[in-house]
Amino acid sequence: MRLSRYFMPVLKETPAEAQIASHRLMLRAGLIRQSSAGIYSWLPMGLKVLRRLEQIVHEEQQRAGHHPMLMPTIQSADLWKESGRYDDYGKEMLRISDRHGRDMLYGPTNEEQITDIFRRDVSSYKQLPLTLYHIQWKFRDEVRPRFGVMRGREFLMKDGYNFDLTKEDALHAYNRHMVSYLRTYERMGLKAIPMRADGGPIGGDYTHEFLVLADTGESEVFYDSAVTDLTLGERDVDFDDVAQCQALMEEFTTPYARTDETHDEAIFAEVPEERRKTARGIEVGQIFYFGTKYSEAMGANVQGTDGKNVPVHMGSHGIGVSRLVGALIEANHDENGIIWPESVAPFGVSVVNLKQGDTDTDRVCEELYAALGKAGIEVLYDDRSERAGTKFATADLIGSPWRITVGPRGLKEGVVEVTSRRSGEAETMAPDAAVGKLAEIFAGL
Amino acid sequence: MRLSRYFMPVLKETPAEAQIASHRLMLRAGLIRQSSAGIYSWLPMGLKVLRRLEQIVHEEQQRAGHHPMLMPTIQSADLWKESGRYDDYGKEMLRISDRHGRDMLYGPTNEEQITDIFRRDVSSYKQLPLTLYHIQWKFRDEVRPRFGVMRGREFLMKDGYNFDLTKEDALHAYNRHMVSYLRTYERMGLKAIPMRADGGPIGGDYTHEFLVLADTGESEVFYDSAVTDLTLGERDVDFDDVAQCQALMEEFTTPYARTDETHDEAIFAEVPEERRKTARGIEVGQIFYFGTKYSEAMGANVQGTDGKNVPVHMGSHGIGVSRLVGALIEANHDENGIIWPESVAPFGVSVVNLKQGDTDTDRVCEELYAALGKAGIEVLYDDRSERAGTKFATADLIGSPWRITVGPRGLKEGVVEVTSRRSGEAETMAPDAAVGKLAEIFAGL
Repeated sequence: MRLSRYFMPVLKETPAEAQIASHRLMLRAGLIRQSSAGIYSWLPMGLKVLRRLEQIVHEEQQRAGHHPMLMPTIQSADLWKESGRYDDYGKEMLRISDRHGRDMLYGPTNEEQITDIFRRDVSSYKQLPLTLYHIQWKFRDEVRPRFGVMRGREFLMKDGYNFDLTKEDALHAYNRHMVSYLRTYERMGLKAIPMRADGGPIGGDYTHEFLVLADTGESEVFYDSAVTDLTLGERDVDFDDVAQCQALMEEFTTPYARTDETHDEAIFAEVPEERRKTARGIEVGQIFYFGTKYSEAMGANVQGTDGKNVPVHMGSHGIGVSRLVGALIEANHDENGIIWPESVAPFGVSVVNLKQGDTDTDRVCEELYAALGKAGIEVLYDDRSERAGTKFATADLIGSPWRITVGPRGLKEGVVEVTSRRSGEAETMAPDAAVGKLAEIFAGL
Repeated sequence: MRLSRYFMPVLKETPAEAQIASHRLMLRAGLIRQSSAGIYSWLPMGLKVLRRLEQIVHEEQQRAGHHPMLMPTIQSADLWKESGRYDDYGKEMLRISDRHGRDMLYGPTNEEQITDIFRRDVSSYKQLPLTLYHIQWKFRDEVRPRFGVMRGREFLMKDGYNFDLTKEDALHAYNRHMVSYLRTYERMGLKAIPMRADGGPIGGDYTHEFLVLADTGESEVFYDSAVTDLTLGERDVDFDDVAQCQALMEEFTTPYARTDETHDEAIFAEVPEERRKTARGIEVGQIFYFGTKYSEAMGANVQGTDGKNVPVHMGSHGIGVSRLVGALIEANHDENGIIWPESVAPFGVSVVNLKQGDTDTDRVCEELYAALGKAGIEVLYDDRSERAGTKFATADLIGSPWRITVGPRGLKEGVVEVTSRRSGEAETMAPDAAVGKLAEIFAGL
């Protein structure tokens, strides 16, 4: 993209309403604009990040054998009356009356709706196991929305639902989801720790939250530092392999890691003192096994192997996709702006032309722009007639992981400068070599 | 996808509530399920079609230089009070009161919201031209929703907005959008005719609707049959070329083509009688130029070349993405089911194994499944233990454009059967040849 033709309204001043870094930077870098309290428009560059996160979620969900679908945002209240949650949900549920006076609501979650779909079309154990998920906008009418997309009212969430014949099968689905979430976060460049959690309004005996450590997190967390060394890395996972998924779940959940809701001082005290850590965390996902809570209330039964009807075992699993954009920035920024991990950056490379209008710098910038594009890297080419200082400040603010600086002085030696946004380290090299280096970095992301 | 692991609940009976073919077939083929009146869940295969349409829209919009972004579904009523449309919109607008009693609404369209974004961040003619668009769910509280996704309440729409300094520039944007829409529909395998239309609640002196001819269309249309011969085809379009876009607009809008709203018998009578046609049409898009209607009401001004502030010229442009799924089926089906055009088919090929469990047929099916996948074709492999008749009926119903039938008798001769869903013609050939033939058909879609 050529910056001169792009819609990326960066702000020089820090918006007064923004209290935390991610909110400030999302406004300043032109990723979002507030529409009303807790409700945002995603400008072109913000949408790019959101779509990259969605793409990673889709790929990892489908790798685990889960099926994408899409439920609507507006639901009938009837299903929620059936499950008994219509009254439970309180004022956070956005309640709506349609033109015929029917009770509707903007879905804050979809257990009822998916259970209704299931009970209408699935009747036999032969159609199980089944996991359906969607990535859809939800609404929670927070009394005091704040922190930008971190605690918004309209937010994008991936939520998935597994249906299994037995508790044992459903616990395999639980483990499979945990492993698939670990990989999802790792691919985004995030360290998210599964922590034992509380069921809340969803319910559930088994539930883990995934937390990203950050000073601005809303939860206090307590953990054994051993847990932060664990990574899934390139390990080959067979999501149908019950034993492997169980072992991975145990590996990642055995070290102590809990939020303040479930923290137990006595157990924590058994962790060696030098590994006992307290910090703050941002919740970016949660998985639940809640058995037959909804299937019994709503009559979602299947015929078992013995021919008898039994309520299906279920769980649900959520990733806060729009919130993750904020969490990623909280975990990846400095005083000059955002530092995107390569896998989620809206633009992998910023090309800065130090002398717009100069035949040589213009030509080399155009060549780099074309060659990097051909290598599958999205480039933001700063072709504005601005001073170098302004262009550098913009590049730092928007946080492309790599910057190529093209100026007449370097070109006399046949080189451009390649700078890492994260380390600040710069190397000079021929334009071709720069393309080769970056193509290698971005290959296989 | 292996059918045995997929969630594709096909129905044998025709659902009583469905009055038109697309609604019936979308329910029967397991593309959608009704959630409440006029509100649908998209099951996995339905979502695939929706995503393919979105992808084509995105590609063609970006080819024309338009920027994707995303506005929220829930808007504050304040902006609509500013433009004066809050009262105009009547009961079709879903009005909502949040927990603090603030007036909100589920957006039926986004002129106000985009104008607000524009006025906050754009102040100079140097930042023009600018076209922003999004693909987002909208809500119109139809008094009598019907025909499935064709007249639903919650529907997916692409809507875009152009901002230009002068009327002349804005009319170029109008022409550019017309051309880009023509290509969008052609890529979907649809013949959509631009017809002079009425501004309606959006407003506008210049407006064209795009209609697909179909017996079940809601509008009566009158046209010169010469218009149906026009195609954009592979013509190279430079969307910055004012004269070329103008010429193309004229080419496609000179033959008489109007809906009942704007029909003029006197002009129509001048069309040679043998070319004078009356039919029914489904509206699948509309473009508008409405000048400074919103920019004046909402103070969206830019500094012109002479330093003076002027209201920006605007237009808007919509494509009904979810409705298009219905329109595509209305235009492409027979008594046995859907006939997807290759470019939008959820699965390009259905592989039917006539003898599941037979070593040879299983092996060849697996090889075809792998080889076609490698060629970038999505395959639905019917690996169920069902009779041939059931498998053929399912393949016909869901409408993959090509079917490969693998049976022991053919394999004795080393051949499989490749059948076109549209023509019904079948050819036998070696499995490798089948892969080669289909790879060629799907290349470059």
